[in-house]
Amino acid sequence: MTVFLVGAGCGSPRWLTQEARELLERADHLVYDRLTHPDALLLAPRSCRFHPVGKREGDHLQPQEATNALLVRLGREGGTVVRLKGGDPFVFGRGGEEARACEAAGVPWRGVPGITAAFGGFLGEGISLTHRGLAASVTLATGHRGQGDEETYWEELARTSGSLVLYMGASAFGDIADRLVRLGRSPHTPAAAVTWGGWGRSRVLRGTLASLGERARRGDVPSPSVILLGEAARETLHPLRGPLRGLQVAVCRPMPEAARTARFLEGRGADAFSLPLLDLEPLEFREREEAVRALEEADWTVLTSPRGPGALRRLLRDLRRLRGRLAALGPGTAGACEALGLVPDLVADPPDSEGLASALGRTLRPGDRVAFLRNERASSLPVEAARKAG
Amino acid sequence: MTVFLVGAGCGSPRWLTQEARELLERADHLVYDRLTHPDALLLAPRSCRFHPVGKREGDHLQPQEATNALLVRLGREGGTVVRLKGGDPFVFGRGGEEARACEAAGVPWRGVPGITAAFGGFLGEGISLTHRGLAASVTLATGHRGQGDEETYWEELARTSGSLVLYMGASAFGDIADRLVRLGRSPHTPAAAVTWGGWGRSRVLRGTLASLGERARRGDVPSPSVILLGEAARETLHPLRGPLRGLQVAVCRPMPEAARTARFLEGRGADAFSLPLLDLEPLEFREREEAVRALEEADWTVLTSPRGPGALRRLLRDLRRLRGRLAALGPGTAGACEALGLVPDLVADPPDSEGLASALGRTLRPGDRVAFLRNERASSLPVEAARKAG
Repeated sequence: MTVFLVGAGCGSPRWLTQEARELLERADHLVYDRLTHPDALLLAPRSCRFHPVGKREGDHLQPQEATNALLVRLGREGGTVVRLKGGDPFVFGRGGEEARACEAAGVPWRGVPGITAAFGGFLGEGISLTHRGLAASVTLATGHRGQGDEETYWEELARTSGSLVLYMGASAFGDIADRLVRLGRSPHTPAAAVTWGGWGRSRVLRGTLASLGERARRGDVPSPSVILLGEAARETLHPLRGPLRGLQVAVCRPMPEAARTARFLEGRGADAFSLPLLDLEPLEFREREEAVRALEEADWTVLTSPRGPGALRRLLRDLRRLRGRLAALGPGTAGACEALGLVPDLVADPPDSEGLASALGRTLRPGDRVAFLRNERASSLPVEAARKAG
Repeated sequence: MTVFLVGAGCGSPRWLTQEARELLERADHLVYDRLTHPDALLLAPRSCRFHPVGKREGDHLQPQEATNALLVRLGREGGTVVRLKGGDPFVFGRGGEEARACEAAGVPWRGVPGITAAFGGFLGEGISLTHRGLAASVTLATGHRGQGDEETYWEELARTSGSLVLYMGASAFGDIADRLVRLGRSPHTPAAAVTWGGWGRSRVLRGTLASLGERARRGDVPSPSVILLGEAARETLHPLRGPLRGLQVAVCRPMPEAARTARFLEGRGADAFSLPLLDLEPLEFREREEAVRALEEADWTVLTSPRGPGALRRLLRDLRRLRGRLAALGPGTAGACEALGLVPDLVADPPDSEGLASALGRTLRPGDRVAFLRNERASSLPVEAARKAG
């Protein structure tokens, strides 16, 4: 019975920490916000219960108190409760309030930090917030003072000589730029806004305090953005960009292959999401029995996809039960066989159905029984019948 | 040919990002600092070349220029060069300079952010730097102005109303505390220092600007520390602590089991390190041949550790070659067999050598040949000889 307040980092799950990933993989309850990357949610086990929270722009459902109450209720029920929050829950993320609510109710909690938008977002665009000679300090600030003296707060921010990063709605920045100038900040202060920081679709707008404020007022600074003021905003490094930058890809393979492909594409610059349209269900007991019998009596077992060998192992449980020989559709399937401790006796070349048919045609003898394994279903039939069945 | 400037986060590898981990796992060259957690280095493949850099306190070997030159040289050679830096390389970590050196030499680079000490360290001690109502901003600053007007810089920091986190040697804090007070900061400002932030051995010292400055001058604030000034330093949340807190554990199992055990212990509060004293080397070709023959002709193969099944698969390549029956020393070994697609025909109970000997004694028939697989070595001998050999 513990509530974990976990940072998801900004952008895709590639900036999740090891600890965040391990907690997601054993979560019994997952409480998450609207902006969470869907692939982070897919790390949770099938048994996990999902609880979306947080208000959407413009509505007032699910205020913070409701989230606190939900965490306390789930924490009391027991199990591993993961409260996943974009960026770092303790950097303007209400993590402190959620922790306090848990403590007040006697529910144990622990925090896991995440990569916050300022550090992830600007780095992705080649802006180093503490570049030596440009900034000896970096200040992260919200647009909402919350309490205390508003004017003093903004006066202090106006005087910041290091990097100043504002976490706020882009729409509010127009007024804030005016205010900072009125309080003495030069309108020529270098400024940069990063939108969708940490994502492949990330973009940077550069200008000055005055020009970026003007663009914000016109609605030209998109959300979600973090905005930097200070000399570091003039910095222009050029990190390597992947060739797929700008692409949005949905990967429809089943899990976990979808996630693997998605991360591979992200490493090359795309924004990729797992969309496992095809889901493989295990067989019913009677179907399993039939499949195992077919495999045991087959002279040849034919595997037509890299998922076949795993299905074969799950069905047979002991690979020694496979008495016959093994044919693989192509090098991918053959490689998957070898990784599992089975070296195919035949690999189709060319790696397609026709190549397989012709190779089997040359090899099979009359009376041989052939089992085809597809999506964990197997049937065994004499070679003559198999020929007719195509 | 790319240089990756990668944050290791503070503390143990549990706060490494997914991307950092993947890059380490395929690094051809790893350039790292003295404070890097050894388990992060162990993620690199055997073929990786290691390059320790960074000066130790008091000496002037390996200045930043030498590191820049090394990165450029390795980057030009090609392959994946990982420059691993504690915390975030772009938060007072010279990442910007290293990136600029790469660009000047035409070497592609990319940055991967990490959890910086301020956010990881204070959270671990229950201090939320942006707790609502206590701080609407957080400033990270070094003790070294680097350039520009020193006095103006410290005046500005003295006036910070939000959380101010100083990245500096603890020994310097005594003088800096004096300076901040002289520049108008109240000596009663709440202060907290976290030492070894993010590690199991992490500790927090609380006090005021004046009292912590005094302790620093007496040498009572240990290194490495980050120091917080501001109302948030009064915050006292109580994150769940593991029962092993305070323990330092070296795990001597071979890899990757050592790392797995180390992370498990860390999750319970210990500081754990992989120290794989026992390393298993693959067999020479002739030994392999002999081992495979012994396994193929055995009526019984005996596996005495959970590593046995993997070795068996590597030796045989195809598990169908195992014609005989299979005995496992205990439930761990049996479980490892099942995961690989082999269901043991006999599992010793009790799970020790005597239990195994007695179970085999009841089962074996005269003339049966028995193969023992230990560390990928196998020998097959008739049961009578095996009995004599004990």
